[in-house]
Amino acid sequence: VDRSLDPDPATQAEIADTSRLETFADGVMAIAITLLILEIDVPHVEGDGSLALALARQWPSYAAYVVSFLTIGIIWVNHHHLFTVIERSTSTFLMLNVVFLMTIAALPWPTALVAEYIQDDARRAVATAVYGGTMVAIAVMFNVVWRYASHDARLLPRTVDRVALARINRNYLAGPVVYSAATLLALANPWISLVIFALLALYYLVPTSGPRAALLHDGGEPAPGEGQ
Amino acid sequence: VDRSLDPDPATQAEIADTSRLETFADGVMAIAITLLILEIDVPHVEGDGSLALALARQWPSYAAYVVSFLTIGIIWVNHHHLFTVIERSTSTFLMLNVVFLMTIAALPWPTALVAEYIQDDARRAVATAVYGGTMVAIAVMFNVVWRYASHDARLLPRTVDRVALARINRNYLAGPVVYSAATLLALANPWISLVIFALLALYYLVPTSGPRAALLHDGGEPAPGEGQ
Amino acid sequence: VDRSLDPDPATQAEIADTSRLETFADGVMAIAITLLILEIDVPHVEGDGSLALALARQWPSYAAYVVSFLTIGIIWVNHHHLFTVIERSTSTFLMLNVVFLMTIAALPWPTALVAEYIQDDARRAVATAVYGGTMVAIAVMFNVVWRYASHDARLLPRTVDRVALARINRNYLAGPVVYSAATLLALANPWISLVIFALLALYYLVPTSGPRAALLHDGGEPAPGEGQ
Amino acid sequence: VDRSLDPDPATQAEIADTSRLETFADGVMAIAITLLILEIDVPHVEGDGSLALALARQWPSYAAYVVSFLTIGIIWVNHHHLFTVIERSTSTFLMLNVVFLMTIAALPWPTALVAEYIQDDARRAVATAVYGGTMVAIAVMFNVVWRYASHDARLLPRTVDRVALARINRNYLAGPVVYSAATLLALANPWISLVIFALLALYYLVPTSGPRAALLHDGGEPAPGEGQ
Repeated sequence: VDRSLDPDPATQAEIADTSRLETFADGVMAIAITLLILEIDVPHVEGDGSLALALARQWPSYAAYVVSFLTIGIIWVNHHHLFTVIERSTSTFLMLNVVFLMTIAALPWPTALVAEYIQDDARRAVATAVYGGTMVAIAVMFNVVWRYASHDARLLPRTVDRVALARINRNYLAGPVVYSAATLLALANPWISLVIFALLALYYLVPTSGPRAALLHDGGEPAPGEGQ
Repeated sequence: VDRSLDPDPATQAEIADTSRLETFADGVMAIAITLLILEIDVPHVEGDGSLALALARQWPSYAAYVVSFLTIGIIWVNHHHLFTVIERSTSTFLMLNVVFLMTIAALPWPTALVAEYIQDDARRAVATAVYGGTMVAIAVMFNVVWRYASHDARLLPRTVDRVALARINRNYLAGPVVYSAATLLALANPWISLVIFALLALYYLVPTSGPRAALLHDGGEPAPGEGQ
Repeated sequence: VDRSLDPDPATQAEIADTSRLETFADGVMAIAITLLILEIDVPHVEGDGSLALALARQWPSYAAYVVSFLTIGIIWVNHHHLFTVIERSTSTFLMLNVVFLMTIAALPWPTALVAEYIQDDARRAVATAVYGGTMVAIAVMFNVVWRYASHDARLLPRTVDRVALARINRNYLAGPVVYSAATLLALANPWISLVIFALLALYYLVPTSGPRAALLHDGGEPAPGEGQ
Repeated sequence: VDRSLDPDPATQAEIADTSRLETFADGVMAIAITLLILEIDVPHVEGDGSLALALARQWPSYAAYVVSFLTIGIIWVNHHHLFTVIERSTSTFLMLNVVFLMTIAALPWPTALVAEYIQDDARRAVATAVYGGTMVAIAVMFNVVWRYASHDARLLPRTVDRVALARINRNYLAGPVVYSAATLLALANPWISLVIFALLALYYLVPTSGPRAALLHDGGEPAPGEGQ
């Protein structure tokens, strides 16, 4: 086999893979997060109508925009954290990420749905449940992507701390569980359910350090002078 | 000729070319895949109407979203695979990629068309044929891009295995053939045609290793310790 | 701890962080800036109506497009300048940037709002105030992002000139102050307020050198021959 | 001055600048090109209406999509060519690129305008003139960006061939001239004008080698074995 063109082609291909996957995922998440604004209408007020009042009445759209924006932002930060430890890729992993991105890219639609029906007593529960269901799907796929990568350190450095890995796996499982509970709650009381989605966005907004420090024990901050 | 600024300018320009082409292609595919959600409407239900029922009636939109999303995702993965072996670029190659991207970027439109008319007996066949025609155009352009790059190893490493190359060329030809057959079938029975498009998306979802391993014989997985 | 895989993992992770943050921020800003055109309608003229006249009557949409486009463009250039001196990242910093991007991504909506109501005497003030309020939110978040990064040189090189840093901080504060003043003015005279927003876009269009030269004293232009 | 952190910070900052500018420009062009499809409607046919006929009647939308897509694609390829020779950046240059991108990002709107009025005898000329005017603006700004960068080799390698540079400058001037002529023609005969826009897209589709080879005399194709 002539490998003179490339001293270590397989390794290099793996690195390129991860980088192009990150770029594609960042692209889809950046677009989905920016499309959210298209779901907010410009109110059409005529005659004696007050624009200020019409704008105020649209508060569910703004609230839904903020919650969905922060949620996608948080997913992006966490996806980002995963790829500080994931260092290889496979075709299966690419496909799992495509399915994961499919759930995120869908979010503008349930966001508009819940904003439309949040003030409709008869339909609020269904709209909230669809919104929550999308959140559950995102949380489940996030775990699937991570489990595939971390199982037996498949795409991680071989030196990861297996005890820390098990703990992180448990932590990430909280996502699907909490979102499923809040979604089921929507059938009983959609308002509480929506408040929980908003609180979850705020809760996850408080940053954590991500899995890298725990898994690789490589310290957090570079020492002064180490920068660049 | 003064080449002191750059020890090997031509080679460097070629590498930069491929990287910027990949970024542009990834951008177009990420946007096209994320715009798909805009084709799904929020149903407007009033009076006694059931939102759950209205959402359920929109199933063709969700099905079309999933099939088109997976199809673009699969094309992205395969385009990705191509560029693990394509290592140079030319102006002609850039233009061929622009035409290829034009077919992919068009997909949100036939997706909405087929979702709109899938339940209309008189028009289902035409909508499905247009959808299939777009798929055929994508598959043909994918082959054109690959054939241009691989012909006489024009943009590939000179050391590629020519026998494997011929086999890969034959494999890629299956795309236009199968999609053309399914599109023609739409004129007789659009349902079967649509089921085939969905099955093709699922079939291609099962990952393959891509052309790199076959063409360069450089192995698949890096050995333990080789990572990073 | 086995760190043989990566001679300096913490430092490397920090670099990757900044680069992926820049890519994501560039993506959101590129999309928000490009979505602005969707807010301009194609006028529907029938019968004897003049298309030229209908297009001319839409001048507020074109003016709003230009002002908002230049504003986002200027924010991008300034964000760009920040990251020539910011060289590390933290989870908190990522989250602050997500909130900053949320204000920028919202801009297409108040842009359409102000274009819709600029010719409506009774509602011009409210629409202008909402537009100005979004500008204030962007300017405030820009300062928050910068203050977090520059406080005690948290994410900057340790060698930055502290005196220059204090001066730059004062300069950046002008943004929120001027935009707040123009927004308050909208309640008295929205036309003057809108002219100020346009003038600010033109004013900031005149380029400055950014904080890097002042903070790092590393000179501006590379000397001839230093390029490459 | 402590420059120990960075052996050559100014030069490095310049390189980063060009790369982030290219990413942002690629993003805007990728989004503008992909948004074009949103301007094509799904026809709503009811009763006895033929979907095939309704789709056929929309041919101006498809034609406008193809011409505008190829035009943006060609601009992207040419912008790409510029940045194989442009190796530095300045704040002024960033701002000029923002204005250049503003003209490209606007293209989906005149594309929809011309598709809407191409079959309307009374309004075809105005719509075509607006479309052509946008093309002229793009071509003018392309020249402004290039002239700024190439004037006295401001952002080019100092070793460029000045004679070749003058010839390239003349060639690029053809763009604004030809597009202006075709736009003026629209007032007399919009059909001829539109055919010229389509032919120009096809004409520029035939690839040229770009300015790099002429300016740097560094050869076109890497010799066999030089790749990677």
